[in-house]
Amino acid sequence: MSIDTLKICRVEIDTYHENVAYLNRECSIYRVEGFQALSKIEVKVNGTRLLAVLNVVDDNSIVQPGEMGLSQQAFKHLNVAEGTLVTVDHAEPPKSMDAVRRKINGERLSQSDFDAISNDIAETRYSKMEMAAFLVATGQNNLDRDELLYLTRSMLQSGERMNWHEPLVADKHCIGGIPGNRTSMLVVPIVAAHGMLIPKTSSRAITSPSGTADTMEVLSKVNLTPEQMSEIVRQERGCLVWGGTAKLAPVDDMLISVERPLGIDSQGQMVASILSKKLAAGSTHLIIDIPVGPTAKVRHMRQALALRKLFEFVGDRLNIHLEVMITDGRQPIGLGIGPILEARDVMQVLNNNPNAPADLRQKSLQLAGRIIEFDPDVRGGQGYAIARDILESGRACAKMNNIIKAQGGKDIDLQPGKLCYPVCADRDGVVTRIDNFQTAKIARIAGAPMDKKAGIDLFKKLGNEVTKGEPLFQIHAEFPADFKFATKLAQQNSGYSIGDSEQVLQPLIAF
Amino acid sequence: MSIDTLKICRVEIDTYHENVAYLNRECSIYRVEGFQALSKIEVKVNGTRLLAVLNVVDDNSIVQPGEMGLSQQAFKHLNVAEGTLVTVDHAEPPKSMDAVRRKINGERLSQSDFDAISNDIAETRYSKMEMAAFLVATGQNNLDRDELLYLTRSMLQSGERMNWHEPLVADKHCIGGIPGNRTSMLVVPIVAAHGMLIPKTSSRAITSPSGTADTMEVLSKVNLTPEQMSEIVRQERGCLVWGGTAKLAPVDDMLISVERPLGIDSQGQMVASILSKKLAAGSTHLIIDIPVGPTAKVRHMRQALALRKLFEFVGDRLNIHLEVMITDGRQPIGLGIGPILEARDVMQVLNNNPNAPADLRQKSLQLAGRIIEFDPDVRGGQGYAIARDILESGRACAKMNNIIKAQGGKDIDLQPGKLCYPVCADRDGVVTRIDNFQTAKIARIAGAPMDKKAGIDLFKKLGNEVTKGEPLFQIHAEFPADFKFATKLAQQNSGYSIGDSEQVLQPLIAF
Repeated sequence: MSIDTLKICRVEIDTYHENVAYLNRECSIYRVEGFQALSKIEVKVNGTRLLAVLNVVDDNSIVQPGEMGLSQQAFKHLNVAEGTLVTVDHAEPPKSMDAVRRKINGERLSQSDFDAISNDIAETRYSKMEMAAFLVATGQNNLDRDELLYLTRSMLQSGERMNWHEPLVADKHCIGGIPGNRTSMLVVPIVAAHGMLIPKTSSRAITSPSGTADTMEVLSKVNLTPEQMSEIVRQERGCLVWGGTAKLAPVDDMLISVERPLGIDSQGQMVASILSKKLAAGSTHLIIDIPVGPTAKVRHMRQALALRKLFEFVGDRLNIHLEVMITDGRQPIGLGIGPILEARDVMQVLNNNPNAPADLRQKSLQLAGRIIEFDPDVRGGQGYAIARDILESGRACAKMNNIIKAQGGKDIDLQPGKLCYPVCADRDGVVTRIDNFQTAKIARIAGAPMDKKAGIDLFKKLGNEVTKGEPLFQIHAEFPADFKFATKLAQQNSGYSIGDSEQVLQPLIAF
Repeated sequence: MSIDTLKICRVEIDTYHENVAYLNRECSIYRVEGFQALSKIEVKVNGTRLLAVLNVVDDNSIVQPGEMGLSQQAFKHLNVAEGTLVTVDHAEPPKSMDAVRRKINGERLSQSDFDAISNDIAETRYSKMEMAAFLVATGQNNLDRDELLYLTRSMLQSGERMNWHEPLVADKHCIGGIPGNRTSMLVVPIVAAHGMLIPKTSSRAITSPSGTADTMEVLSKVNLTPEQMSEIVRQERGCLVWGGTAKLAPVDDMLISVERPLGIDSQGQMVASILSKKLAAGSTHLIIDIPVGPTAKVRHMRQALALRKLFEFVGDRLNIHLEVMITDGRQPIGLGIGPILEARDVMQVLNNNPNAPADLRQKSLQLAGRIIEFDPDVRGGQGYAIARDILESGRACAKMNNIIKAQGGKDIDLQPGKLCYPVCADRDGVVTRIDNFQTAKIARIAGAPMDKKAGIDLFKKLGNEVTKGEPLFQIHAEFPADFKFATKLAQQNSGYSIGDSEQVLQPLIAF
């Protein structure tokens, strides 16, 4: 509560999402205020304020007494010149933590509670542990569906919202968990070739071997400004870019940065995350893909149905036209897993190559068909045939080439990593199971997605016959250390089960 | 997973409980491994390993490429010389987070789950956000009493355990929340004068205006090594020291460091925290003081009874002889709030000064009496009379003086802060309520406990008659800024209610 001033200086330390302030231990303000290392402080200048974690420094070459050092991120956020005088104070805990504590105690929260929480998170008033407390308190079945609606609405309102000035803005989203599942790269050119607007933003891989943005990056740039994206969408009706540059639903990103390392996710938070992002992106019509299978994110039909109802409940109340497709999540989609191998599969389907993976083609046509049926001029049931016609006629491929070119197309090199190791069947039989987690893990350890050429190439899928010693899949890598670890992991557990034909894992539903 | 080596160097930054490692962005290992700022890394040398949060540095004067900088705490923990070669790797998330996720999903955990969690926390494998997830998942009524027993046992086993080599080691603990409540400083000399062993460790204030360790520090040192403490206890049968130097139940301290800033606490965690600490301190016989009142931690009798049962259930199974006393928590105990003012009250009681606060004397005699009855040679019901006799005869005062001397007694100065402000009654009537929170807050803002002379001195207690303009209490402070804020806070809300005699808050139970 003192009003002494300190001089701002930049400390060349990168602290990522966290603002860190450095104060010399000999600084008089440090002693008078009774600050403690790791306590949260508020730095104030000209009516703006920055919250930061305090580190105390005993080296005058880093910060001197009388200076307030800021990490690179904190310096950028405060946005004042070095030498500017600032005041510093203890930061008050965020007021909305009261609501979080009420939730921990089992109470139901209101729209204004969620708004206050989202606001405080957006203003970086929450520490990571406070976000963790919020996520656990609202996880599992701790939110009823009205609360979920409030949460989604408050997350949506925390950031900017795009407006495409068209009545129908199509989008698709898969809840994830299935390696190789690059349907967006087929759905976008098909739907855009039909003339519908589909400005697709995708994520990079966080725990998977490749995200759509990682795979698309093999073919073109994906890191475009919102202005570049608008320009391309106006021209081509579609795009395939990374969603990280726009400030859409920033609270979602901040919660995800805690959720991922904790390995917690709940259906409610997934629904709020996806719908707040899609609404912020200006989508009006959305297909959600929920793969179901024993090694998918959703393992039982009853779970998939409950999730579908949640999406429908929230989507209907936030005015997005939303349809859910429950799909076959028993095994990876396509043959390649990893950016270059997946890009190869996509290009083969677009080129109508007879070797193209049939499952990737089929699923993409189904999704594209459903989106095309959002078009009021298309008769119900005709979407699939229209999508297939666009693909077979080469119009999807031409559209994709235009999008690639508009996004700054690269010299395309689809050669996977030159270090190869085939993983072979240990008996005669048929493939009865393929573990999504294990195949993803092997591809990731081989270096995907950082190393675009790394990954695995599947030769056999569920139900295929194999003979002892025949390759099931091949590992590709560029770096010897990665190659060694991936090979070792595959030797311990290939993710494949070989058995008799009657043991083949059956779909949970006729897809 | 690389095995490149880096040279350790110490970075003079104090990061308190958190280990931070600094890596130059130009360091080859940073690029190859795909590290990210704020990711958790594992530093390994000679079979020992350290987990640290990574900060990336762009200033060669802090760390150079090829060096691994460690914050002061991290450097101390790793305990190797500067220049030692280490390897570095991505840290795996703690295995026991699986159990935390199962708890979040509503499952019941086993002893081995809690053991694994406590172990991982003790080895600093948990980040603050992971600890927050654990605390929220196990908070409220999410642990049944068997799980609470498992948690307590695992926390106890996480650290060292003292052994006094005597069959009866007495202790007392108050769950807190009542300002001025310094009974330990009376109970210890009385019980030790009776000849029973009572090696009392206390905490410093975290959110209150003074802890027993802060108040005792007015009279003597409290920051003693375990060896010094043993020596004093052998000689005097009792001591009053700060508990922070021994490594007792370290998991408890780590969880508290997350619990406090989050402002969450549950009855279960309180029981596990107190009993693990007391068992680790070697106590065999324990009195727990649970004050009940509308502004106490426990507000209803049913809550106090439920808490008592929890203490009894866990204590009985961990072989500690435990008794719970539910006490009057309607208002502060004694007259002074803040280290020096509380020390004054304690010394007045010990000196049998007729102005000594009667409630502090009475409550301390009751607690001491119950502890004295743990002595097999004392007849049931005689404890109180024995305690009173020890106090009135001056033996308690003599014992306290010996303990103070043994602990390196100071020149005692009981003069409170010279800046004074009397807060006066705004009407005639009687004191009907005193808010524990508000009085504690005013004393704290006035500077307690950092400033030993700061605090408030109560002139009126519940039921006392007052006339308009008569002082209710006086604020003491040493520093003008603190004084100003405390005065302003008291003007807004003094914490006192004045009304008619029939409105006086009645005790929830006949104490």
